[in-house]
Amino acid sequence: MIDLTLIGIGTGNPDHVTLEAAKAMSAADLILIPLKGEDKADLAGLRLEICRSCVTNPATRIASFDLPVRDPATPDYLQRVNDWHDQIAAVWQGAIEEHLGQGGGSRVAFLVWGDPSLYDSTLRIAERLARQVPLRLKVIPGITAIQTLCAAHAIPLNDLAAPFTITTGRRLREAGWPEGADTAVVMLDSGGAFAEIDPQGVRIWWGAYVGMANQLLLAGPLAEVATQITAARAAARAEHGWIMDIYLMRRDTGQAARA
Amino acid sequence: MIDLTLIGIGTGNPDHVTLEAAKAMSAADLILIPLKGEDKADLAGLRLEICRSCVTNPATRIASFDLPVRDPATPDYLQRVNDWHDQIAAVWQGAIEEHLGQGGGSRVAFLVWGDPSLYDSTLRIAERLARQVPLRLKVIPGITAIQTLCAAHAIPLNDLAAPFTITTGRRLREAGWPEGADTAVVMLDSGGAFAEIDPQGVRIWWGAYVGMANQLLLAGPLAEVATQITAARAAARAEHGWIMDIYLMRRDTGQAARA
Repeated sequence: MIDLTLIGIGTGNPDHVTLEAAKAMSAADLILIPLKGEDKADLAGLRLEICRSCVTNPATRIASFDLPVRDPATPDYLQRVNDWHDQIAAVWQGAIEEHLGQGGGSRVAFLVWGDPSLYDSTLRIAERLARQVPLRLKVIPGITAIQTLCAAHAIPLNDLAAPFTITTGRRLREAGWPEGADTAVVMLDSGGAFAEIDPQGVRIWWGAYVGMANQLLLAGPLAEVATQITAARAAARAEHGWIMDIYLMRRDTGQAARA
Repeated sequence: MIDLTLIGIGTGNPDHVTLEAAKAMSAADLILIPLKGEDKADLAGLRLEICRSCVTNPATRIASFDLPVRDPATPDYLQRVNDWHDQIAAVWQGAIEEHLGQGGGSRVAFLVWGDPSLYDSTLRIAERLARQVPLRLKVIPGITAIQTLCAAHAIPLNDLAAPFTITTGRRLREAGWPEGADTAVVMLDSGGAFAEIDPQGVRIWWGAYVGMANQLLLAGPLAEVATQITAARAAARAEHGWIMDIYLMRRDTGQAARA
């Protein structure tokens, strides 16, 4: 029986780590760090740094392994992602067996950027692994990019007593402004989906690398700042080789005037 | 000039506190703890306990003060809340002047359950205060009840690449299932708004006092567990004198079968 703990570690600021997450890291026999494409640059180092600064137990081993890449030959997006998750689960199983086999123990932890519940595949992969290996699963929440963005801009996420929607860049392009909410947070945007909606009456609060040392922030009426955000994003991406950004957009409903 | 820091402290588990939040508490000259009705019971003690366990700076003073209550004579909900926020800002100003006057310093911190951006009035009150007093505002994100609920149930918040909506019990009653999303998280429900929607094909993951020692969890098809949740909620409320609960509902879209 493997005790698998998925630990949310926030968005790159080592101080985002909760006491619960730090304790869970030190309670693990093995912390596995998957390496993705962009991880091979800044992110892998940052994750290792967070890990090393939190783990106080000398018996905890830290190991990394390479993730497979998505097969671009699979045309359907969801199918491509699902196939990829199947492959990752197999790679996880191999990495767990190899490293537990070498050093013993049964408590394995994975570190997850942000929170394991939010646009992250780790829980879905853990479900697949549980079909192959007896598993006790535990999840430790972490600070998300949504909260980090709002904190950095010092803005509320919701209008007073109002609903809001979290969506993806892909979905914003396909479906336009989400129905039923005047506040939308957009994640996983491959770039500039905000430029494809009607900017009339819309404000945007944008952030890249939120929580990290190189955090960028821009905000204003969408009509005025969209071009500036697009340029800042392109420049940052060119400089770092990768980018993660997020934004909140709010349609003017008159509530701000009343509040 | 006052440096005002709003610190998210999570949902009652002292281990939810981030390193950033703990440092911010110890960096304050004064931590002000507002007492609401229910705070006078378990919550005030819990907040003080979190505060005392995190503050390592002996010079940091901790003080509490009573919040005014909303005026039930104001019929419009938003107006009632806005009036109340005006009153609270005045009470904040008085408490800050009184306590900084006694002990000196300019760095004031407020602790916020969960995260200051999420269905919380602290940022709105700080904006009002900033109109009266020169203020530098800083926000420290905290673990929200949404993440704590998902972690406790070990479920993802979103379906793969799909949007989701966060809404209120009041709104769910008025407007039904939120348009444009198959996942809805409901907060601030005064009780059982889930019973007023069509349960066909809907699963619910419910939690009360999430993150606290007395956390309650129930999950299942809404049609099967709604009555059980209503009964558990009533019993817990009777036992503790107050309740905070939250739930996630997901409509079956066939994705689970594919994933």
